[in-house]
Amino acid sequence: MKYEAINLAEKFKLFDEAWQPRVIAELNDYQFKLVRLDGEFVWHKHDETDEAFLVLSGELTIELRDGAVKMKAGDLYVVPRGVEHKPTSPDECQVLLIEPRGVANTGDTGGDRTAREDVWI
Amino acid sequence: MKYEAINLAEKFKLFDEAWQPRVIAELNDYQFKLVRLDGEFVWHKHDETDEAFLVLSGELTIELRDGAVKMKAGDLYVVPRGVEHKPTSPDECQVLLIEPRGVANTGDTGGDRTAREDVWI
Repeated sequence: MKYEAINLAEKFKLFDEAWQPRVIAELNDYQFKLVRLDGEFVWHKHDETDEAFLVLSGELTIELRDGAVKMKAGDLYVVPRGVEHKPTSPDECQVLLIEPRGVANTGDTGGDRTAREDVWI
Repeated sequence: MKYEAINLAEKFKLFDEAWQPRVIAELNDYQFKLVRLDGEFVWHKHDETDEAFLVLSGELTIELRDGAVKMKAGDLYVVPRGVEHKPTSPDECQVLLIEPRGVANTGDTGGDRTAREDVWI
């Protein structure tokens, strides 16, 4: 049998849009998603789950109501469940998200920046 | 409040031993673990869970009974639950493991290469 690893950089070549996560793998009922972040997102939270961000390139700030997490390539941060956050990137950054299947990018906020779920590449 | 991201490269400076995973973060009941792999490990499987490998540096081969996954930095692979595997690295490689809390590195095989669980750095 032939087995192949998933190369993150190769997967990023398959899409350009910012704020639209793409699913690349599943681990039990969790998903690995690649996303490009560019500019400011909306304040939101996920009451039912933590959410992990691993920055692969560029710079990301995760704003929190009482502070902020400054991130660069090779940085990991887990936003705890229920904590309001707003990802902001001054220029495009590439991020690997890890979270349970079915989590919406806008959490409890919704609105027109909500991504369609489960777009695989 | 001051919040800080976890830098993977900085965390790797805190330990040298191969095959001894270190926990750096949790996501619900899942853990992010850093591990150095060097040489051959033991054949084992995890009947209760998938296991994700993200290679950060070096080269890793995950041998499977009917094939193998060749991996380099930036490659992700999820070993499905119940699938026997043997990680092998010709020279040291650095890996981020993601799996549920409480998973032993040697799975159902056990033995003297079993790491103590939950050593945080």
